[in-house]
Amino acid sequence: MLTTTVSITLTSLILLAFVIIFNTVHDPLSASIGFSLLGCVITWRLVPELKENFIKINLSGKDLNKINKPVIPESMGIICATVYLICLFLFIPFPFMEWFTDKGKVITRREEFHSPTFPHHKLGEFLSAMLSLQSMVLLGFVDDLFDIRWRYKLLLPTIASIPLLMVYYVNFGETHIVLPIPLRFLFGGYIDLGYLYYLYMSLMAVFCTNSINILAGINGVEIGQSLIIAISIAINDLLFLNGSDPAVEAHLFSLYFIIPFIGVSLGLIMHNWYPSRVFVGDTYCYFAGMTFAVVGILAHFSKTMILFFLPQIFNFAYSVPQLFKLVECPRHRMPKFNPLTRKLEFSKVKLQKPLNLPTLLSLKLFSTFGLIKIMENNVNNIDKKKIIDDDKKDLDYIEVNNFTLLNLILLKFGPMNERTLTICVLIIQVLTSCLAFFIRYRLVHLFYEII
Amino acid sequence: MLTTTVSITLTSLILLAFVIIFNTVHDPLSASIGFSLLGCVITWRLVPELKENFIKINLSGKDLNKINKPVIPESMGIICATVYLICLFLFIPFPFMEWFTDKGKVITRREEFHSPTFPHHKLGEFLSAMLSLQSMVLLGFVDDLFDIRWRYKLLLPTIASIPLLMVYYVNFGETHIVLPIPLRFLFGGYIDLGYLYYLYMSLMAVFCTNSINILAGINGVEIGQSLIIAISIAINDLLFLNGSDPAVEAHLFSLYFIIPFIGVSLGLIMHNWYPSRVFVGDTYCYFAGMTFAVVGILAHFSKTMILFFLPQIFNFAYSVPQLFKLVECPRHRMPKFNPLTRKLEFSKVKLQKPLNLPTLLSLKLFSTFGLIKIMENNVNNIDKKKIIDDDKKDLDYIEVNNFTLLNLILLKFGPMNERTLTICVLIIQVLTSCLAFFIRYRLVHLFYEII
Repeated sequence: MLTTTVSITLTSLILLAFVIIFNTVHDPLSASIGFSLLGCVITWRLVPELKENFIKINLSGKDLNKINKPVIPESMGIICATVYLICLFLFIPFPFMEWFTDKGKVITRREEFHSPTFPHHKLGEFLSAMLSLQSMVLLGFVDDLFDIRWRYKLLLPTIASIPLLMVYYVNFGETHIVLPIPLRFLFGGYIDLGYLYYLYMSLMAVFCTNSINILAGINGVEIGQSLIIAISIAINDLLFLNGSDPAVEAHLFSLYFIIPFIGVSLGLIMHNWYPSRVFVGDTYCYFAGMTFAVVGILAHFSKTMILFFLPQIFNFAYSVPQLFKLVECPRHRMPKFNPLTRKLEFSKVKLQKPLNLPTLLSLKLFSTFGLIKIMENNVNNIDKKKIIDDDKKDLDYIEVNNFTLLNLILLKFGPMNERTLTICVLIIQVLTSCLAFFIRYRLVHLFYEII
Repeated sequence: MLTTTVSITLTSLILLAFVIIFNTVHDPLSASIGFSLLGCVITWRLVPELKENFIKINLSGKDLNKINKPVIPESMGIICATVYLICLFLFIPFPFMEWFTDKGKVITRREEFHSPTFPHHKLGEFLSAMLSLQSMVLLGFVDDLFDIRWRYKLLLPTIASIPLLMVYYVNFGETHIVLPIPLRFLFGGYIDLGYLYYLYMSLMAVFCTNSINILAGINGVEIGQSLIIAISIAINDLLFLNGSDPAVEAHLFSLYFIIPFIGVSLGLIMHNWYPSRVFVGDTYCYFAGMTFAVVGILAHFSKTMILFFLPQIFNFAYSVPQLFKLVECPRHRMPKFNPLTRKLEFSKVKLQKPLNLPTLLSLKLFSTFGLIKIMENNVNNIDKKKIIDDDKKDLDYIEVNNFTLLNLILLKFGPMNERTLTICVLIIQVLTSCLAFFIRYRLVHLFYEII
């Protein structure tokens, strides 16, 4: 009975999606919503169907934050990303439909084929964006399979962003940045960053992909944060649709990528929400990050985009001492599951004394801001007579929480259920998005003239 | 000592590649050769280094045609394809260098950015070709991992070719075909295929990718045949370079894709030649096939391309009865290894009597042309008294060789060593390439006017 209802609902949703797509030949935005719906339903349906295949080839992992530590499939982001890419492939002709129908004479008159009216540069933007995106999906999947080294994780997104930068160069080539008012007395109104601007954009790709990947590890948090960022981007785009022509085009472009992204992510989160039946893997994180980088770069709102990434930026900055080995970094920094209370607690790392200078400085800095908790190991409590000298040396250590946002939340608010922790992160993400909109649309006059 | 010599050679080759690339800012063809050399060396170096990682995640298979059936890594085509894609990413700016350097003022003068002089449509061709190619690499790798079903294997290349067809539509839109002279009395000189032409092109993508995939299974044969096709394409392209302008551009485009392909394939075949240390997987076959489809479509020589695929077309037509289940098709149709003689023999399939009509017709047709060998199972030789009726029924069968080119060669020339069989296939490929050139450049006046 239930399955019949489900299949009827599914079929009607798919039919609805097709009706939307076929009735919107001249309205790509609606077509995009149709594809988003289609992507959502297909992802939702495919994930449980293909689960077993992933487990069969050992693409699976233990969910350590559960009592019975169930083994569930990993890297299911590849399904969601593949559905997304297929949707976008099928969507490509829609924004160009007017050249195919109204101006349909191009089909029959040979000399008009190379007619300058067709916006080849727009098509180029689409293709380059998809190429960069697909490269990152491939890279993420390979990373899930082989655990590639950090240095490649930084190098490969840079290479993946080449088509994007190339198209940026030939379509816009704008490398001036408008300086905020408070800085103008120093450098003037504009600065031409030149090639540095391309470096900035490719670093953006590296940052977006990796920053989501390090704010991860509990059920639903990867997709949850990505969904909130995506929705914020969509709202921001919608705010521009009544504006001037070039801005409308850019933000439409952004919507064409973001709307289907929201669809497939919703399809996947239904299986990844607490308690997860599937993990999403690095594939999803890279896919999501690159989608944001692509629209941020090609729709020219990379500064606003950075505002939507505030929790990720904080988490990255907070992680720096461990990422760069100033403080010892264990293999996993995920919160620790306490089977007695069934709650998550912050995980700790042991630091052997004597501490070296970088460690001491990092600890000093972060404890000043109350961001870490240092626990001294009280050797005096232990019966000293039983300890021989070597052992005593081993016991001479301190403990500190791992430097991640998740552990910090647990440190400040105490142990909590995994779902609650995810919700906490998502609330923070929503609040910072509100802050981002406030900065972008209310505080902006302090820094820039409003045109 | 040996390793020192190898690393010195490697380093000098890489240096040479960089020297070529950096000294050819205005000659993309030479840069392409530099990237090809670089791709070759890197692929050759990476494959043995990453072998263990593939075996670790069970991407490995037994080489059944060897005495000790060693387990060797599978799907190493992904390394070769990734190196190829990275080379092409880095190569993208080269064909457009004149717009970046001589006409370098575009960097500083804002109004010239959208200048119509920049060949956005050419860049679009590049990007769409790479997008389609990369999609097939991703699909091939997923196929290697999950063994996806036949129907998807046919559907997905069609979707992967959408960007290609889209760019074809807006850049050329040509759907007329010139009819061969003997047919003109029926249909006239031209036929406009309209949308059928796009169907033809997407079928071309499906055919190229799958036809290489079914002429496979012995050491070195997948890369060997692809290399000969690629070299034939390159020779054909070079023949056009002194011609008229649009043809030169199209064939240069083809060379930019084919030259690095030859490089990375050479790097991989050194490990895949008999006795193989690695298998190449479906990934390589799809990657190779799509490269050919892409250049055939976008450089407008799909008819000539088909001529280079004669052995694959024959193998496909010959396989049709088994592929479409008219005749029973076992899981593997590879030749059989005889450990006593250490040679390969043709493999057989048992057909239970009574045979159904499609099977009978297929056997009749192929045996008329001497393409199969039917072996009657002589029940009379066996002591009939010992056989109860049921068993007798089981014994009532005939055997026939599996319908593949490899088995046909073994049927005609007798058992042979695996390496000899590969060389036989490659000789056939070379001979048909010669035939293809003969048809294209000597017999063509019987069918078309030479312009």
